[in-house]
Amino acid sequence: MTASMFTTDPHTGDRRDTGIIPTDAAGVIAATTTAAAAFAVTRASSRTWRAGLLRALADGLERHRAALIEAAVAETGLTAARLDGEVSRSAFQFRLFADAVQEGGYIEAIIDHAGTTELGPAPDVRRMLVPIGPVAVFGASNFPFAFSVVGGDTASALAGGNPVVVKAHSSHLVTSQRSFVALAEAAERYGAPTGLIGIVYGQQAGALLVADPRITAVGFTGSLATGQILQEIIAAREAPIPFFGELSSVNPLVITTGALRERTATIAAGLFASVTGSAGQLCTKPGIALVPAGAAGDVLVAAVVALAEASTPQTLLNERIHEAFGDIRSRLVHDGRARPLIASRSGENGFSRSAEVLEIDAAAFSSAAAEEAFGPLVLIVRYESVSDVRAVLTAIPHSLTATIHSAPAEDVQRRDLTDAARDVAGRIVYDGFPTGVRVSWAMHHGGPWPATNTQHTSVGVTAIRRFLRPLAWQDAPTDVLPEELRDGPAALPRRVDGMLVLPPGS
Amino acid sequence: MTASMFTTDPHTGDRRDTGIIPTDAAGVIAATTTAAAAFAVTRASSRTWRAGLLRALADGLERHRAALIEAAVAETGLTAARLDGEVSRSAFQFRLFADAVQEGGYIEAIIDHAGTTELGPAPDVRRMLVPIGPVAVFGASNFPFAFSVVGGDTASALAGGNPVVVKAHSSHLVTSQRSFVALAEAAERYGAPTGLIGIVYGQQAGALLVADPRITAVGFTGSLATGQILQEIIAAREAPIPFFGELSSVNPLVITTGALRERTATIAAGLFASVTGSAGQLCTKPGIALVPAGAAGDVLVAAVVALAEASTPQTLLNERIHEAFGDIRSRLVHDGRARPLIASRSGENGFSRSAEVLEIDAAAFSSAAAEEAFGPLVLIVRYESVSDVRAVLTAIPHSLTATIHSAPAEDVQRRDLTDAARDVAGRIVYDGFPTGVRVSWAMHHGGPWPATNTQHTSVGVTAIRRFLRPLAWQDAPTDVLPEELRDGPAALPRRVDGMLVLPPGS
Repeated sequence: MTASMFTTDPHTGDRRDTGIIPTDAAGVIAATTTAAAAFAVTRASSRTWRAGLLRALADGLERHRAALIEAAVAETGLTAARLDGEVSRSAFQFRLFADAVQEGGYIEAIIDHAGTTELGPAPDVRRMLVPIGPVAVFGASNFPFAFSVVGGDTASALAGGNPVVVKAHSSHLVTSQRSFVALAEAAERYGAPTGLIGIVYGQQAGALLVADPRITAVGFTGSLATGQILQEIIAAREAPIPFFGELSSVNPLVITTGALRERTATIAAGLFASVTGSAGQLCTKPGIALVPAGAAGDVLVAAVVALAEASTPQTLLNERIHEAFGDIRSRLVHDGRARPLIASRSGENGFSRSAEVLEIDAAAFSSAAAEEAFGPLVLIVRYESVSDVRAVLTAIPHSLTATIHSAPAEDVQRRDLTDAARDVAGRIVYDGFPTGVRVSWAMHHGGPWPATNTQHTSVGVTAIRRFLRPLAWQDAPTDVLPEELRDGPAALPRRVDGMLVLPPGS
Repeated sequence: MTASMFTTDPHTGDRRDTGIIPTDAAGVIAATTTAAAAFAVTRASSRTWRAGLLRALADGLERHRAALIEAAVAETGLTAARLDGEVSRSAFQFRLFADAVQEGGYIEAIIDHAGTTELGPAPDVRRMLVPIGPVAVFGASNFPFAFSVVGGDTASALAGGNPVVVKAHSSHLVTSQRSFVALAEAAERYGAPTGLIGIVYGQQAGALLVADPRITAVGFTGSLATGQILQEIIAAREAPIPFFGELSSVNPLVITTGALRERTATIAAGLFASVTGSAGQLCTKPGIALVPAGAAGDVLVAAVVALAEASTPQTLLNERIHEAFGDIRSRLVHDGRARPLIASRSGENGFSRSAEVLEIDAAAFSSAAAEEAFGPLVLIVRYESVSDVRAVLTAIPHSLTATIHSAPAEDVQRRDLTDAARDVAGRIVYDGFPTGVRVSWAMHHGGPWPATNTQHTSVGVTAIRRFLRPLAWQDAPTDVLPEELRDGPAALPRRVDGMLVLPPGS
């Protein structure tokens, strides 16, 4: 008999038997086969039906809230308050996506009627985005709800009309199982086909899932290294499929002299909170802060150091992250030539770690100092000029975000910094902090390689686009056209003969 | 001194010195460096400026029409009439894209104002698509204008605000050079920066171009094999970039019993014209026609054979295609077990080939019979039932198009066939032929692997999306926001706080 899997209590390091058996090859095939069967149903479902499904999933999630948080507290070391917020966020996300599905703009319906053009007679052509098929979703360790079984990839794949098979993250297995049960139960009550939502456990099952010919796309949030392993599996498939990876991010943050003059204490407090929130394990954590050289910058650095010294250690998610954090800190000091500013650490136990503040001069900054450190660590880079800032930004791997703190009057400098930031990030934050990613229509959570490997977002309504593909119908009789592409008034925005047309009454 | 390059007259097989020298490594670097410098200008250009640029390029193309056609007739073996139409198409495309750029919907502008949500206070977030950077475009042999220097990839990359460096196709070098001069001259007259449009020659230059760190995306129309070589170069880059490949397509076409009853002669004539147009060298050529077994089907097959026997040989584009055509025909007969229906061929010379009609029963059909044959060849598959059709469609590599000919009353069968077609193609054509790809808003010219490797089109307005990436601004002061994302009335459609808003006066 196959042994069941363990998770570890990050507070103590104790291992615990979850009773969950790794999914074998037959189990993976069963999951993808029922997913493919479910797709035959969901692809033909109306937008109204699908919006209802998403709302039912939000309700199901909230019904199971207590059991979900209980499991995640034990498995992740994150606080109940943080986890409660994450469940709310995922429920909100399902409902926001339900609104988007109902509204219909996301399918990009376009109708070009037949006619005579400059190039001669032209056929009737109609296009919309259609679901791609069963999607594999890989949960991330750091967001047991927002980027795992019930998170953004699952919500956007389902919103698009696709079944989902999740690979549970090994460091929160029970949380994943309970999350799956919450969704599967709600889907069944709603009358959704079996197989709409599936789950597999274990690394080998994950590899088989990505290789399975019934899987048509992969959503992944995790490390660059694991992302590359999955991409190699995809490259070896007979038919390669899109891989949407959110892979790594250093998230530079720049503070100008004007900003320091105006609000040093506020920035120090905000920066420290953003660096150490959720034990610094957010993909948008500002890992590098660029601070002016000189006395005003010294005051800011001293304030951040004082906050770090007064703080208590925080528990990291698992042993791997705990080990890696120490290793990366050592590399930043020895290879990256950064100066540690926190003298002594105390009270660490289990997988806990104290906040770390390192410092380096811009002139000494190299790519060896630009490594992402997952955990409560910030590297402060002291700069003399905007051209120093440009040079440092160029040496940092492209990121999900870049942040600029400036004073209102510094318009020239702010434009220069914006110009430098737009090439290296997917979202530019002003006078705030990049952690806390709003789930909304305009959010972009993506960035140039290696932040992500695509031109898409994994947060916000436009994340649905990843799991859709265009399909065109030419000179089609009405009876084969989807409702959204038939002539006459339609309950969604469409582009008709080049003109955008809103639905009646909007 | 490096020897200049030759092209071959496909009518005679004679080689001709073009006087064009292969671009060396320094030349590639010069092209990408000036493209990167041009990007600093074009990325900041207004939509109005860019629309004007596209119109100027259309005008420039038309000014050079005679010289372009003259070069292409000599290098490609295509007729002057076909080439004239292709120049018109490319000019039309620049103007259509100018309209789209002016209208502005393609940038997907979204504004979410700050506010209090169920999840607490939320920041102001604004998102739009921005240009990606210098784009490498690989010309295709079969469309010296529509899919080469002045074609869809160039037009969509420029429309998005990106510079372009074209790798000239080796079989129409002079045509490519003249096309480049036409665009570069028009761009310069318009006041565009040097480097907005560049060109390199030779296979080695193409490889260096794809590897160049200043290149941010690749547009390619060509063979699966070459596409895979380019993808390997991309995989070896420090930063991988998106590769948009239009790679192969068999384009199945299904004819029902009802359609035969109604219009056998019309279908036979249309099918033959579609198979042999431009010597069968269109990516949307219907390579496999599914025809009912039995007497009615026999009549159709006999009609197609009669048309083929009465036709004269056509000149193929180059020696490689000419050789490959013979090889593929042999494989279809020997490995694929197809029966040749054309007894004898005569009058072939240079790179010319007679039309070929092969036949096979659905029961004998295998993937060995499903190879794309670039040239005037159609394989007719005789079927007994819709489930035969499904089985054959499953064995054919996914394609750009699938076509269904049916009679109006056959609604059940048409829905079944549509259902089978949607998984294997990007465009479904009814009662018509897939060749002739309308350049319009709704067109989709793409399909599941191996037709293309992405969820995008290379024809039509939505092709512009390939060369854009999202960028979000959070809590940004107005002075750093692009005009399109500022508050107040805007001259483009936008989504504001979840609601789609049309520009005033539309």
